[in-house]
Amino acid sequence: MSTSETSLATSPLSVDELNRIDAYWRAANYLTVGQIYLLDNPLLRVPLTPEHIKPRLLGHWGTSPGLSLIYAHLNRCIKARDLDMIYVIGPGHGGPAIVANTWLEGTYPELYPSVGHSEGGMRELFRQFSFPGGIPSHVAPEVPGSIHEGGELGYSLSHAYGAAFDNPELTVACVVGDGEAETGPLAGSWMSNVFLNPVTDGTVLPILHLNGYKIANPTVLARISDEDRISFFRGCGYEPYLVEGDHPADVHQQMAATLDVCFDRIAEIRTDARRHPNVPPRPRWPMIILRTQKGWTGPSEVDGAPVEGTWRAHQVPLPQVRTNAEHLAQLEAWMRSYRPEELFDATGKPEPELLGLPPEGTARMSANPHANGGLVLRDLVLPDYRDYGVDPRGHGTTLGEATRELGAWLRDVIGSNPDRFRLFGPDEIASNRLGAAFETTDRQWEAELLPTDLNQAPYGRVMEVLSEHQCEGWLEGYLLTGRHGLFTSYEAFIHIVDSMFNQHAKWLDSCNHIPWRQPIASLNYLLSSHVWRQDHNGFSHQDPGFIDHVMNKKPSIVRVYLPPDANTLLSTMDQVLRSRQYVNVVVAGKQPELQYLNMEEAVRHCERGLGIWEWASTDDGESPDVVLACAGDVPTLEVLAAADLLRAHLPDLKVRVVNVVDLMRLSPDTEHPHGLGDRQFDTIFTADKPVLFAYHGYPTLIHRLTYRRTNHENIHVRGYKEEGTTTTPFDMVMLNDLDRYRLVMDVIDRVPGLGANAAGLRQQMVDARHAAREYTRSYGEDIPAVAGWSWPH
Amino acid sequence: MSTSETSLATSPLSVDELNRIDAYWRAANYLTVGQIYLLDNPLLRVPLTPEHIKPRLLGHWGTSPGLSLIYAHLNRCIKARDLDMIYVIGPGHGGPAIVANTWLEGTYPELYPSVGHSEGGMRELFRQFSFPGGIPSHVAPEVPGSIHEGGELGYSLSHAYGAAFDNPELTVACVVGDGEAETGPLAGSWMSNVFLNPVTDGTVLPILHLNGYKIANPTVLARISDEDRISFFRGCGYEPYLVEGDHPADVHQQMAATLDVCFDRIAEIRTDARRHPNVPPRPRWPMIILRTQKGWTGPSEVDGAPVEGTWRAHQVPLPQVRTNAEHLAQLEAWMRSYRPEELFDATGKPEPELLGLPPEGTARMSANPHANGGLVLRDLVLPDYRDYGVDPRGHGTTLGEATRELGAWLRDVIGSNPDRFRLFGPDEIASNRLGAAFETTDRQWEAELLPTDLNQAPYGRVMEVLSEHQCEGWLEGYLLTGRHGLFTSYEAFIHIVDSMFNQHAKWLDSCNHIPWRQPIASLNYLLSSHVWRQDHNGFSHQDPGFIDHVMNKKPSIVRVYLPPDANTLLSTMDQVLRSRQYVNVVVAGKQPELQYLNMEEAVRHCERGLGIWEWASTDDGESPDVVLACAGDVPTLEVLAAADLLRAHLPDLKVRVVNVVDLMRLSPDTEHPHGLGDRQFDTIFTADKPVLFAYHGYPTLIHRLTYRRTNHENIHVRGYKEEGTTTTPFDMVMLNDLDRYRLVMDVIDRVPGLGANAAGLRQQMVDARHAAREYTRSYGEDIPAVAGWSWPH
Repeated sequence: MSTSETSLATSPLSVDELNRIDAYWRAANYLTVGQIYLLDNPLLRVPLTPEHIKPRLLGHWGTSPGLSLIYAHLNRCIKARDLDMIYVIGPGHGGPAIVANTWLEGTYPELYPSVGHSEGGMRELFRQFSFPGGIPSHVAPEVPGSIHEGGELGYSLSHAYGAAFDNPELTVACVVGDGEAETGPLAGSWMSNVFLNPVTDGTVLPILHLNGYKIANPTVLARISDEDRISFFRGCGYEPYLVEGDHPADVHQQMAATLDVCFDRIAEIRTDARRHPNVPPRPRWPMIILRTQKGWTGPSEVDGAPVEGTWRAHQVPLPQVRTNAEHLAQLEAWMRSYRPEELFDATGKPEPELLGLPPEGTARMSANPHANGGLVLRDLVLPDYRDYGVDPRGHGTTLGEATRELGAWLRDVIGSNPDRFRLFGPDEIASNRLGAAFETTDRQWEAELLPTDLNQAPYGRVMEVLSEHQCEGWLEGYLLTGRHGLFTSYEAFIHIVDSMFNQHAKWLDSCNHIPWRQPIASLNYLLSSHVWRQDHNGFSHQDPGFIDHVMNKKPSIVRVYLPPDANTLLSTMDQVLRSRQYVNVVVAGKQPELQYLNMEEAVRHCERGLGIWEWASTDDGESPDVVLACAGDVPTLEVLAAADLLRAHLPDLKVRVVNVVDLMRLSPDTEHPHGLGDRQFDTIFTADKPVLFAYHGYPTLIHRLTYRRTNHENIHVRGYKEEGTTTTPFDMVMLNDLDRYRLVMDVIDRVPGLGANAAGLRQQMVDARHAAREYTRSYGEDIPAVAGWSWPH
Repeated sequence: MSTSETSLATSPLSVDELNRIDAYWRAANYLTVGQIYLLDNPLLRVPLTPEHIKPRLLGHWGTSPGLSLIYAHLNRCIKARDLDMIYVIGPGHGGPAIVANTWLEGTYPELYPSVGHSEGGMRELFRQFSFPGGIPSHVAPEVPGSIHEGGELGYSLSHAYGAAFDNPELTVACVVGDGEAETGPLAGSWMSNVFLNPVTDGTVLPILHLNGYKIANPTVLARISDEDRISFFRGCGYEPYLVEGDHPADVHQQMAATLDVCFDRIAEIRTDARRHPNVPPRPRWPMIILRTQKGWTGPSEVDGAPVEGTWRAHQVPLPQVRTNAEHLAQLEAWMRSYRPEELFDATGKPEPELLGLPPEGTARMSANPHANGGLVLRDLVLPDYRDYGVDPRGHGTTLGEATRELGAWLRDVIGSNPDRFRLFGPDEIASNRLGAAFETTDRQWEAELLPTDLNQAPYGRVMEVLSEHQCEGWLEGYLLTGRHGLFTSYEAFIHIVDSMFNQHAKWLDSCNHIPWRQPIASLNYLLSSHVWRQDHNGFSHQDPGFIDHVMNKKPSIVRVYLPPDANTLLSTMDQVLRSRQYVNVVVAGKQPELQYLNMEEAVRHCERGLGIWEWASTDDGESPDVVLACAGDVPTLEVLAAADLLRAHLPDLKVRVVNVVDLMRLSPDTEHPHGLGDRQFDTIFTADKPVLFAYHGYPTLIHRLTYRRTNHENIHVRGYKEEGTTTTPFDMVMLNDLDRYRLVMDVIDRVPGLGANAAGLRQQMVDARHAAREYTRSYGEDIPAVAGWSWPH
């Protein structure tokens, strides 16, 4: 057994240091219990009575003493070693513990002056916690120093690694709960160290808090053998150090000794790596396994059942304090066991020797600017996107690959921002035709390299791992600490991170109401392998519903763009990368497609967000007979082809073509800041003419956005309706009735008085659909008639 | 090093056996390449020409030879040991390999007679693959023996464990791709062995296929050290055995020897465990690490770049076969390298010695009835739910906890079905008040047990792990192999499995079009800790959007229920557990709430799916002035309280109260089988009166379901609008304008001619809201006026 497999026996703390750190920990625990229980009498000046107790007892005690223990010991190391450190708390339910620590070190009173270092401040600290009009019970955005709420479990370590990338002097201490460790995303994040370069990135110090239980169950990692547990973490590339015990003095000494060893080792790894920057392989980073009791120092038994060290300590160990005198007495004894009279002076201020313990200013984890990313955010240097893109030489006459053009610009965005921009993707950057990025950078990778590897290196701006969870978590951590990025993925599989998106969107929304939280760069998605071009992967890869999911969040947070070609994609992405505090979803195809707008037109079109394409319309600016609207690259092609057919076969029909890039423009202006006013909407979509809307996703979304518009009764939407299989691209649109022939039939069915010509054309369309399908079934590819198409203007 | 850490040196195959197994493998590889490339000339009777080649080349070669190698060797073991085995393929992109094997062993021709053992059959086998009108490229439902498509990666091992539960004689061989192994859900599933009992459950044999690459990247597990990899899997509780090599004969011998060791060990574990059923701990199950080249036996170089053994072999190694003569020649040489003339006779039939190799009948993995779960599905024995529930003694006069009542029934469902029903949850069964289950069973757990543990045992019907991914994956595997179950979770966090739900719904939809696939039990969700009662957890835990997500799937697959009280919940769950081939989402509160319907009324109400509650209405069956509609327990309470207020204060107003249990009833009958016809809808909701709809989730869904109805312009919906924090339950509904006072104001604002009384009432409501909020902010709990409420009828 190596030293790492057992606890360290040294005792680095002097008696005085030990006493002080223990006092600090007792103070944090006292303040934690106070937050969970007390409305008043914060210093226990009088015996507790039911009136001092909150009517609803909410909060999580179980994880809190462990979190505070770590906090106190990290503070010691920050001071002793002048470390730049933030603290990511996986068991985010332990909000009261972290709030207690930020109060003790003074950040909380600075940001919330009514919660100062006084008896009144302490009363307010207690009262506000998990109380109506107060603060949330988790390590929410309201908590200084937090970049990770931890309400939904699984993402702490990904966030920590994301924070460490490109922050070479930063250390991210990350507590992982043994409950959280059972989640898939967390389990998949241990090996993030394969992607962390000790020269150019910071350090993550994972601390597995093995307190043994989740809500009502033991945890898996606590009940496998010691040998297996050590073996698991060594397998993940770490050197695990154990800290274990029930006796505070002993655990303090172990923890101090272990952190010393870990930070020595981290310093050594950094120094070595920076001295020999070209020598792989990845170092074996240290980690800590901290095994202490759940609810340590709390009531050991309640009503005859064991509590401390069991799942019963998870939330509120004494649930009936207000009505049960015995519980009340137990609470008082529990709180007095921390000896508050030694910790706080008569005014409620922490004793000077406590106040002197934590670091000062921005060295405090709660005041570290990395944890309020907007403070350190620097704008991206963005090359002028107008210098990229394609010259379409007319409207719809040349082919181009939108994402390939974007790739060239992104290459130069990367080149211009070598320290603050990264691309994230689940092994799809090249497949999504963004390969130009590799002309200037590589995929970051610290594991073994082989001579046959391409664009794989110990340092790079591209992060690829086959895990949407890791990509999302890393990017969130990167953004939350003040940097920029883009996540590109398959449209269907972005649902894998639906819930992570939810949490991030809610985080942003909350931050918009917290004055000291500075705006951060937006979370940007590029969904490039989209529903219409999954014909080769088939039905299981077809789902455009992420847009619907996103639309359920606050309009102040979310933006959705569907640029139809390369130049509009470039213009959109430029806007997206400049934005702050949003979630931007951009859906754009990667296949060779017709290009419609030159750069000047694209810029104007994207500024407007939607517009009439006069060059494709035959209404000459007058009142049209029918509006053909489209959003998305594939629907745009089909609408233009349908307009072309109508123009050729029904030359008297006045057709207006409208293209929508910014989906939010369809919303009423009362509901979304990008929304169109009703008059503007009616001007474009008419108040009474049939509107055929060919939409990229599920049709209901267009109805949802437009159901309050004057002309809504006339809006008929075609989109994806869960029909799909392995077939050709045109067969896919036919299967979903989004094809040009079907759109022409729709027009004929909805515009009255078109006469005999129209009836004949309708039959031609029926025949054309039949022929197209027959051809495809026979020859395995699309009829040439739809493979290319050229607008004559 | 133990023997497990190196490859086994023995050579169990005789030369004859070796040659036959190799021939079988070559045949499978030949048929795989044929599927990817050929339209015609399947036996290579003439030299290949471009006309023989498919116009679009789609398919994944890279993983295929490994999958076929494993298939052939598993077949040998099935025969030698009379094993009952199914094969779960994580790298589901390797569809052509599995189709090839099922064709060779005869299942495919039995199910698809046009694809027989003949030259014509082989031509069709090749042509149909990934071809319009043909079959998908993945291991889709169309593939016999598949329970796991593997298009979206990460769930193979969870599915495998789910299949093994309660199948004590079954062995589930599960290939995990090293790409898939990077995903969170897969990483989180290795330790599923903690939940598998060797006495009552079957066995999972994981086979990590370490071919080194994903789409365009090396894989993490392939590039960490051998020591770390072994250590990782030992840490996960396995005994890993290595098979590694480039030379087929050598790898065949290693694979045969290793499988022999593994199956010996498995037999030993089973025998031991069954002989001493009360002796923990969990055994160290064997697993295999198979390290072979990606695209093994394919082109080693193409256009000067290495292909075999690199990421370039992932999909179609020779991409220009139709236009590039050299590629065409390479393809022909590649196919001929398998010596098809030795494998198939002149008619295209596999040679007898190949046909004799696989097992027969249902011993074939492709014909194993467990993989077509409907074949082995037995109905649940369901106790009469009418014997459970509450007697509400009037409408809304007593309190009850809906899920607690359900728990009693579920306890007896479990008791009556000890071999075919399980409850799954992320550590929330007790928290969701289903604890009655523990009167008859425990949580299954093979890791260490402590004396303080409660309801935790080596055998049990409750599966709790803090991972929604595991719960969902296990349950899917359990259902797909013909059993029944229920997944209960927090409403907000069920989004974690959005994408898994997608895949399962699409699987069910596909199966509805495959005659030989028998219907399986529905996938049932009970979302009990829902958006309205996350007031204590706050904003991050509030999201009712899973319903919206589900509604994007085919109406033939999805069902959503919002029972308002205990008896309706019981009636709903009975229906849900009897159903087949659906995904059922049931949302029901766990808190003490008023009970409205006695059992007889509940049964009738649930049969109708929605209905007028005459006892709460004041329109006496006549035309109402306003309709108050509700769906969900909390909205129902607020609507009834609003109706009560209106009755007291505006006694002349005719109010109709409508409650909706089955959300799909709101759909037009042309769109959903449960949908109401327009006339019925108008009879209930009127054609022209204001409708105030208080809905559990995001309001847009009600508009989406009703926008085609006559009276849609008058339907005004209140629901969750992303406002929430840590506060009281009533403050939560006020924050979202769903409260009784707001509803009364809405009525007053929308019903014309109510006069001065109404204006006064409106001001009272404004004041009541203000007072309620003030009270809550001061006292930390809801005003007593809303804590209880009693309908006077």
